Amino acid sequence: MAAQKPSIPKGTRDFSPLEMVRRNFIFDTIKGVFCTYGYQPIETPAMENLTTLMGKYGDEGDRLLFKILNSGNYLDKVNDQTLADKDQPALTRQISEKGLRYDLTVPFARYVVQHRNEISFPFKRYQVQPVWRADRPQKGRYREFFQCDVDVIGSDSLLNEVELIQIIDEVFTRLGINAIVKLNNRKILAGIAEVIGESDNFGIITVAMDKLDKIGLEKVNEEMLAKGVSQDAIEKLQPILTLEGKLKDKFPKLMEILKDSPTGMKGCEETMTVMRHLKDLNINTKFELDLSLARGLDYYTGAIIEVKSADVAMGSICGGGRYDDLTGVFGLEGVSGVGISFGADRIYDVLMELDAFPEAFLTSSKAMFVNFGEEEAKYAMPALNKLRKAGINAELYPDSAKMKKQLGWANNKGIPFIIMAGTEEIKNAKFMLKDMASGEQVLLTEDELIKKLK
Amino acid sequence: MAAQKPSIPKGTRDFSPLEMVRRNFIFDTIKGVFCTYGYQPIETPAMENLTTLMGKYGDEGDRLLFKILNSGNYLDKVNDQTLADKDQPALTRQISEKGLRYDLTVPFARYVVQHRNEISFPFKRYQVQPVWRADRPQKGRYREFFQCDVDVIGSDSLLNEVELIQIIDEVFTRLGINAIVKLNNRKILAGIAEVIGESDNFGIITVAMDKLDKIGLEKVNEEMLAKGVSQDAIEKLQPILTLEGKLKDKFPKLMEILKDSPTGMKGCEETMTVMRHLKDLNINTKFELDLSLARGLDYYTGAIIEVKSADVAMGSICGGGRYDDLTGVFGLEGVSGVGISFGADRIYDVLMELDAFPEAFLTSSKAMFVNFGEEEAKYAMPALNKLRKAGINAELYPDSAKMKKQLGWANNKGIPFIIMAGTEEIKNAKFMLKDMASGEQVLLTEDELIKKLK
Repeated sequence: MAAQKPSIPKGTRDFSPLEMVRRNFIFDTIKGVFCTYGYQPIETPAMENLTTLMGKYGDEGDRLLFKILNSGNYLDKVNDQTLADKDQPALTRQISEKGLRYDLTVPFARYVVQHRNEISFPFKRYQVQPVWRADRPQKGRYREFFQCDVDVIGSDSLLNEVELIQIIDEVFTRLGINAIVKLNNRKILAGIAEVIGESDNFGIITVAMDKLDKIGLEKVNEEMLAKGVSQDAIEKLQPILTLEGKLKDKFPKLMEILKDSPTGMKGCEETMTVMRHLKDLNINTKFELDLSLARGLDYYTGAIIEVKSADVAMGSICGGGRYDDLTGVFGLEGVSGVGISFGADRIYDVLMELDAFPEAFLTSSKAMFVNFGEEEAKYAMPALNKLRKAGINAELYPDSAKMKKQLGWANNKGIPFIIMAGTEEIKNAKFMLKDMASGEQVLLTEDELIKKLK
Repeated sequence: MAAQKPSIPKGTRDFSPLEMVRRNFIFDTIKGVFCTYGYQPIETPAMENLTTLMGKYGDEGDRLLFKILNSGNYLDKVNDQTLADKDQPALTRQISEKGLRYDLTVPFARYVVQHRNEISFPFKRYQVQPVWRADRPQKGRYREFFQCDVDVIGSDSLLNEVELIQIIDEVFTRLGINAIVKLNNRKILAGIAEVIGESDNFGIITVAMDKLDKIGLEKVNEEMLAKGVSQDAIEKLQPILTLEGKLKDKFPKLMEILKDSPTGMKGCEETMTVMRHLKDLNINTKFELDLSLARGLDYYTGAIIEVKSADVAMGSICGGGRYDDLTGVFGLEGVSGVGISFGADRIYDVLMELDAFPEAFLTSSKAMFVNFGEEEAKYAMPALNKLRKAGINAELYPDSAKMKKQLGWANNKGIPFIIMAGTEEIKNAKFMLKDMASGEQVLLTEDELIKKLK
């Protein structure tokens, strides 16, 4: 058989030991903060029934789901007409019942409903798992990527929003990323559409406003006009789109504009409450009101949260919001929740660009015994055992290869200490410890060796 | 829309917070030991190209691979004749290019070849990830399950075998499982087939011998005879199948039988060398020679290793062996490796059956502040913040619900301490700390609170 040239599917990645250590630094930091705040882990299967996933992410999402071919004689059950017509949607339904997880939110909603009788609400859970999307791969966008979600479901207290932003603050402070939290509220957006008399065009307006940063005010206005928003409404919208200044000035102006919309006023009040708490708590991370923030997700009903790096131009590195009816589609109505998701892959890219990963990562053992041959290996092994029992990661080069090869290998792995024991050392029951950085050598007993390396 | 009754695909599982804590105990223990021995983590994508996976696990394996439907208009590229013929194998090839990882060994071989220029051999890696098989689900057999693999590739030293068995010893000692390591060697099996004159029936003989424990000697003999092994050869095999006694007696008998097969003698020598080292190292775990052990995997060329629980009747909880040409199919010849795989799900089941998970798992926060209302929450939040900064996992109940509900919730989560601060405590800048187990209450300042909980 001719050898295959090995490759992996486009948009997927292998992670090398160094990448793993860096990624685990991110995951461990995030999970550590989640635990500090009393959130508990769950995991759900990579595969979900397509009935669970389909229709939850819009038409585009349905198309981007990875679907799994049924096992066994899947073709036996296919309708002949479907094949004759080459009817792909019908065929897909007949040959595929399962898909890969597209995000962690829908599986979480499914989990909550399925396990409602075992859960003590409010349920504070976190979940760190990969998700898969058949998106066109590009820089920073993968077909397999990792989400770190944290949600509380079954409580409508705004203290949850406050806590999630504290979590954002804590995570990015610990990671050494200078972040900016942008806040908005779906009710403010609804209020705006209402007071300019365009509630029916709510979607068009928020989608256009969301592009303000990218395409500028003029183009946003053009887009709205082209899509049927009245000239009059667009004019009424201008003071909102150009709202500037400090938070304490912005809110009074916004509330003046929204005063006839109870929904809009509620949104302002909620956002101010959250911000007041954050101010009292003295969080490190800057937060600001961003009325253009919509995040395009239909299920948000209150707070909308997005986080960007202050120093690296990159999409959002964390985002989320409040949803009042996530579990309704699975039969559990009236349960409010709020959650955010950290994008581990983008956080990785930000840390790489900032060169901000801690330097002192020990990706490997602390010490390697050189292998001089059978007898020397036999002498080394009990000492090696004792080092390990003392909690020191250590190893013996497995083959009695050339010294240069063994030292090069240790160097590649970043092992800081080398231990040598040849005929002379064995005779004196000693070990020669070499510091790879300084080149310094010292002759030690077994006990001294353990003490020195500990 | 009618509510969907939520469910997950058969053979897959959700993991609740308690299950997660238990599972992480297993994973963290295993990974910790791997690190102690100088192994480094890698990860590979859930999806691999089918060209990488197909033909590596036998016909049965090919059938049990989960295959992923191509994205986009996959049906456009299908041959009309294929549809007219309802030719399933041909259709599968035309509509599916990717499959889910079936084990961690083949992706590892693919990884090694693909990244050969970045790797410093011998490469000691570990990998802990889920794998998927479209097997019929049953007790202890899942369609998504987790493997914990550890391999060293690029070294033919038997010290690697020794080290892997030390790892087995250390893992099961730390987990509190009384394990038995069964050892065999492919070369011994080949030698046996050779000396009884049935090298051509090697597969038939090893498959039959593998059933010795389950079906007994008579049935094993019957099976071999029925499948074409000569009566004469079966008679010659009897002293081997009935070989009993201590290791130091078994080997001389076995070597007497195998003396005319250099391969068989090499196998004995290798196994004795490994066992001698293990004896010198005084490992806790019992190990024994088991000539019926074959593990049905064609790629083993030397040591074969299998681990069972001594106290719980369950399949193997760890297994592996040496392979001399795992990467050849991907174009890298002559690289020898040896590795083992821990079955996390079976280990979980063994620990559950033994009731041996550590009791003191803190699955949740150490303390919960009762929420008495807006003002009280505001008083609690800075103190809560300080607890967290001091490394104490703590939380505030998000809603000012009834006391009974809040305490019940804390109890369900297993939170050991409750902190109460109402009007009286606020006036005196104090906090009432209640020990949930003893019911004892004590009034403390913020500093005393932190000190007490730390």
